[in-house]
Amino acid sequence: MSLIVVGSVAYDGVETPHGKIDRMLGGAATYISLAAAYFTSVKLVAIVGDDFAAEDVDLLASRQIDLAGLERVPGKTFFWSGVYSADMNDRTTLRTDLNVFAGFNPKLPESYRPAPYLLLGNIQPELQKSVRAQMPTLKLAGGDTMNYWIEDFRRELLETIAQWDFLLINDSEARLLSGESNLRRAAPRILQMGPRTLVVKRGEYGAVLFHGGCHFFAPGYLLEEVFDPTGAGDCFAGGFIGYLAGRGIQPEDGRIDWAELRRAVIYGSVMGSFCCEKFGVDRFRTLTRAEIEARFEEFQTCTAF
Amino acid sequence: MSLIVVGSVAYDGVETPHGKIDRMLGGAATYISLAAAYFTSVKLVAIVGDDFAAEDVDLLASRQIDLAGLERVPGKTFFWSGVYSADMNDRTTLRTDLNVFAGFNPKLPESYRPAPYLLLGNIQPELQKSVRAQMPTLKLAGGDTMNYWIEDFRRELLETIAQWDFLLINDSEARLLSGESNLRRAAPRILQMGPRTLVVKRGEYGAVLFHGGCHFFAPGYLLEEVFDPTGAGDCFAGGFIGYLAGRGIQPEDGRIDWAELRRAVIYGSVMGSFCCEKFGVDRFRTLTRAEIEARFEEFQTCTAF
Repeated sequence: MSLIVVGSVAYDGVETPHGKIDRMLGGAATYISLAAAYFTSVKLVAIVGDDFAAEDVDLLASRQIDLAGLERVPGKTFFWSGVYSADMNDRTTLRTDLNVFAGFNPKLPESYRPAPYLLLGNIQPELQKSVRAQMPTLKLAGGDTMNYWIEDFRRELLETIAQWDFLLINDSEARLLSGESNLRRAAPRILQMGPRTLVVKRGEYGAVLFHGGCHFFAPGYLLEEVFDPTGAGDCFAGGFIGYLAGRGIQPEDGRIDWAELRRAVIYGSVMGSFCCEKFGVDRFRTLTRAEIEARFEEFQTCTAF
Repeated sequence: MSLIVVGSVAYDGVETPHGKIDRMLGGAATYISLAAAYFTSVKLVAIVGDDFAAEDVDLLASRQIDLAGLERVPGKTFFWSGVYSADMNDRTTLRTDLNVFAGFNPKLPESYRPAPYLLLGNIQPELQKSVRAQMPTLKLAGGDTMNYWIEDFRRELLETIAQWDFLLINDSEARLLSGESNLRRAAPRILQMGPRTLVVKRGEYGAVLFHGGCHFFAPGYLLEEVFDPTGAGDCFAGGFIGYLAGRGIQPEDGRIDWAELRRAVIYGSVMGSFCCEKFGVDRFRTLTRAEIEARFEEFQTCTAF
């Protein structure tokens, strides 16, 4: 069933130990959409400038991603650049030019509003909230956030996530949001803020899912080469929500089927792992659903005992 | 079946965010033995001074650990003290007094030599090698090492581990030993050095097992309180080899039963997790085999999908 993805579509400059690309397609909503589109139909909401290249539109369109909500305005597309540390566990931002993204005020096309699934990428909490309000028949909604919103827009963020079914954040964000350094104690605090499902992403170490008093570990896939981790967390989110939307999963009395949630987290890890295999979105130019299924089975082999 | 454990028996001073203990029983061989003794009969080889307390002998003896190889000489027992960072992922050594441990030259009592299992704690590679040579009918041998031996005693270490069936090290040691920053590429290099089984410990993130072209992830248990991580890696080793020894597992044509190896790694994680629940060896004063089995099942619940 249809999934609305809201967030940044950008150009990125990235340097990793494997090379340097001055400008390539990026942005959270791009990665989320490309990953989710393997599982369900995706409708994108984002803003780009008049420099946004036809070939990048074509890539998104080739995945049957609905671009009716991709606003195009005069000016330049959001640009971000950064450089990764030798082990690629840290990165330093070199440049952030918001450009047209500074005026982003997502308005959903009429055709998007009845969609049952919503994934909100990391943008201003007030904007995330306004999108949620435009979708009266939602079945499942959630998203991502970051330290900046947790620290400086805490009230707005808490109001926003109170309406979400799930929250996907990394471990340092979970600590910041909960005020608890211990993850086992941080999780119930966050679950009291509204979302009944919490996924804590731990980079190369995988993710932990919390729901209904249970938790589940997804390991990080051991890649032989990590070319570029940019977008891996967003692809995780895309695989997670894409799988749930594709299966038509929805909460019943606040509870989501535990087996399906666990599989969704593994598909998230699968999509995050593929993302790192090439620069930017390149892996998604050739990736097939059969490769995704094969890696899902590999996760089973590597964790069952 | 009988397991020989060789390494340090010490007194530790430890400070964590939960408190400070000036002097308590510690040492790699102590933790390994206490953990392994839940699964198999253990024979300890270590050296202590004349200050070694009767109550500490009693604790080890109460677990039916054979102390015929616990040498007692004039002088003081090995003393180490350290302080942990707020998140307990780092620690700073404050003091290392080798004392009688400086003269440690492990000689196995005659009654120990026919034992089929050997776990060598982190000591000088030459000493580890000399112990191996005293056991003509070994079925399974392996151990631990550390950055100091990898960097400054590389030749001796390589000669030593060439004779081992398994090696248990942490991820930074795996990188140092292999010269590969990527774990997936580091593992096959290390497996070419001799051991057919490699376990890479990743602290709170669990461990990865490599054997026979396969790998397996054990997550780190999510504790509500980590009181003191001292000895957790040694308890992991004790649970791992203890389980294999208790089951009488041995290599056939260099291969070890993959299902048993995976279970051994989970038991290692289980024992490491219990270790962190109290200061020093305190958790092992009350821990029961039933609690161990319950946590093993919890690991299954948290990883199956």
